[in-house]
Amino acid sequence: MCDFTLTQELVIPGTSKMVMLIMDGLGGLPMYFGGGTELETARTPYLDALAGHSTCGLMQSISAGITPGSGPAHVSLFGYDPVKYQIGRGVLEALGIGFHLGPDDLAARGNFCTVDAAGLVTDRRAGRISTATCMALCERLRAIKLEGVKVFVEPVKEHRFVLVLRGEGLEQEISETDPQKLGVPPFPACPLVPQAERSAALVNEFAAQARELLKDQYPANAILLRGFAKYPAMPTMNDIYGLRAAAIAPYPMYRGLARLVGMDLLETGDTIEDEFTCLEQHWADYDFFFLHVKHTDSRGEDGDFNAKVAVIERVDEQIPRLMKLEPDVVVVTGDHSTPAVLASHSWHPLPFLLYSRYCRPDHLAAFGEFQCGRYGSLGEFPAVDTLPLMMAHALRLAKFGA
Amino acid sequence: MCDFTLTQELVIPGTSKMVMLIMDGLGGLPMYFGGGTELETARTPYLDALAGHSTCGLMQSISAGITPGSGPAHVSLFGYDPVKYQIGRGVLEALGIGFHLGPDDLAARGNFCTVDAAGLVTDRRAGRISTATCMALCERLRAIKLEGVKVFVEPVKEHRFVLVLRGEGLEQEISETDPQKLGVPPFPACPLVPQAERSAALVNEFAAQARELLKDQYPANAILLRGFAKYPAMPTMNDIYGLRAAAIAPYPMYRGLARLVGMDLLETGDTIEDEFTCLEQHWADYDFFFLHVKHTDSRGEDGDFNAKVAVIERVDEQIPRLMKLEPDVVVVTGDHSTPAVLASHSWHPLPFLLYSRYCRPDHLAAFGEFQCGRYGSLGEFPAVDTLPLMMAHALRLAKFGA
Repeated sequence: MCDFTLTQELVIPGTSKMVMLIMDGLGGLPMYFGGGTELETARTPYLDALAGHSTCGLMQSISAGITPGSGPAHVSLFGYDPVKYQIGRGVLEALGIGFHLGPDDLAARGNFCTVDAAGLVTDRRAGRISTATCMALCERLRAIKLEGVKVFVEPVKEHRFVLVLRGEGLEQEISETDPQKLGVPPFPACPLVPQAERSAALVNEFAAQARELLKDQYPANAILLRGFAKYPAMPTMNDIYGLRAAAIAPYPMYRGLARLVGMDLLETGDTIEDEFTCLEQHWADYDFFFLHVKHTDSRGEDGDFNAKVAVIERVDEQIPRLMKLEPDVVVVTGDHSTPAVLASHSWHPLPFLLYSRYCRPDHLAAFGEFQCGRYGSLGEFPAVDTLPLMMAHALRLAKFGA
Repeated sequence: MCDFTLTQELVIPGTSKMVMLIMDGLGGLPMYFGGGTELETARTPYLDALAGHSTCGLMQSISAGITPGSGPAHVSLFGYDPVKYQIGRGVLEALGIGFHLGPDDLAARGNFCTVDAAGLVTDRRAGRISTATCMALCERLRAIKLEGVKVFVEPVKEHRFVLVLRGEGLEQEISETDPQKLGVPPFPACPLVPQAERSAALVNEFAAQARELLKDQYPANAILLRGFAKYPAMPTMNDIYGLRAAAIAPYPMYRGLARLVGMDLLETGDTIEDEFTCLEQHWADYDFFFLHVKHTDSRGEDGDFNAKVAVIERVDEQIPRLMKLEPDVVVVTGDHSTPAVLASHSWHPLPFLLYSRYCRPDHLAAFGEFQCGRYGSLGEFPAVDTLPLMMAHALRLAKFGA
């Protein structure tokens, strides 16, 4: 059954306030032999002081050695088993552009591609056409009509777009049309279960009409579709934890992930300072805040150690504003590691602190991977434990058994 | 489903090189109050330096308090759930003497025993006859013919032998003939499932013919059979991790266990130095090496603390040869603990280090149980996590989810 059944039965209402501050891709690695990680290198007096009064540890997003994408990493943080609640690529791509998916939607990730006179794929990305061209071509594809479903074609970036079919009875179990190699024609979409036959036929009809509409648009003269996925039905954080939860997240992907678990999406400016202003403004309205900082990950993905350090320092400067609100529980961590030295997400567990009047302080000297690993009493623990720990420290979970 | 399904889907090919150095029975206990363990007592400058740059912890072979045999301990290290993939005693006994088992083989562990005139067991080990006698008696039993199966009778040591029946349709679900007590006759083998009826009949026919052939061979005038087991079908390490894996292990049992998971078995001399020479010679040919050192366990089983210390020191001297090969990932640990003070396997978790350019160093002062337990950021973790961790640090696992 559900992993959170136990917690769910124990939830008690309350007015305590919790903040989950996520620096995307926070975890790091030393750039050179004997050096510190990005977080260890950053000057973070406020986070260091907070860590000294917190229960700390190293948080594992999924399981040993597994590098998570943003989807499963956040699903874990929100308290859901990330292997059970997998979110398909089509849905994530739609969330990433802020497309408002509903329960009847079947989403897919699309690429514009190039095919030759014989219909064989010669470039899976159509020479990475400009985003402006992509927008124009998406507009053209919107002319496609399919029997019984509404069609949405939304540009993403360069050659990428999102296709959403909206209608009853659509199924995600269909094979991808992207052959993942050159010199062959795009594959037909095939049903992988009998109920998906109509969905596959609709996709093939869309692809055929697209081919016709794009035939004179070289190099973007065909499309490839993959990651067919329906909007997953997930119990909300209100269902599970009885929380009025709100997300402060400027980026569409994270707003989408937050909406997936039933959070309200607050309007916020783009800067880190704006996000904390948003928190202050809505402090009275919710009892759980997910505050997401994107650029720690972006600078890590760029491989720019110093720029990632600078983002962490900017977040640190906001900590006094957060603490002035007198939150009952604060968690500071990331969703996954993005060491600049790897310039990509990684499997390394995350530095983690949980502050509350009722936590047992581990008396760390500073907030960092080494300190959390060596002195954190939580040890290495799974991300799905975070929400129950927050709820407990907020005095929102009743006794189990008599 | 399988415990490694997640990992399996994420495997990406690569050329990185991994070494798993197993000192059998490495974990130990202090000999006297306030002393160090065998590893802590050994002078190991190279392992200490390596541990300083590694991610460390205490590895649990099976689960809390469980003392593993060599079979499950290695199955775990190779990344398989040791409770799901249990290897029967008959198969382990056959692997231990280097018998090349195939998929149609049913193996059993045999004892020569003594029965009196009434056919009642008076000594389950026939007075521990010599190995030479055992060999002669096995030769005698090879005369036995059974309908539709090929019969192998192989001496092990003293009163112990291995029986292998080879043929189609054999089943392992049959009861043991060893009554485990004196004053009763050997039990008949009974089918525990209907499909095993023929197998049980064949075993009973073998036992009857053996009784006849041995009737004048007092004290070894009968046999007892137990641990009926077929060669288990396991996915190979190549299936799961896409690895070209090789085993450097002089002892038959460990060669057999390595073959079970699809490793190539390299020809090596018997000494520790020979094994590292073998590693150097085959460095270009594989991307994963399992290097097994037996005598740490043997000396632990002997209860000889100082001799076990000496074996560890000999391994330490080889570490520079290993590091000179510039491996991408090195793990050094054992399969289980064998404290000299217990003179047997034990349940204590194992000192563990994982070195890689992409590991987060825990800055241990030395490689030992106390240091790994107190300062290792992995904490106490399950042995089945080892392979995913090695794969991750070798950059051989793709991102899970988008």
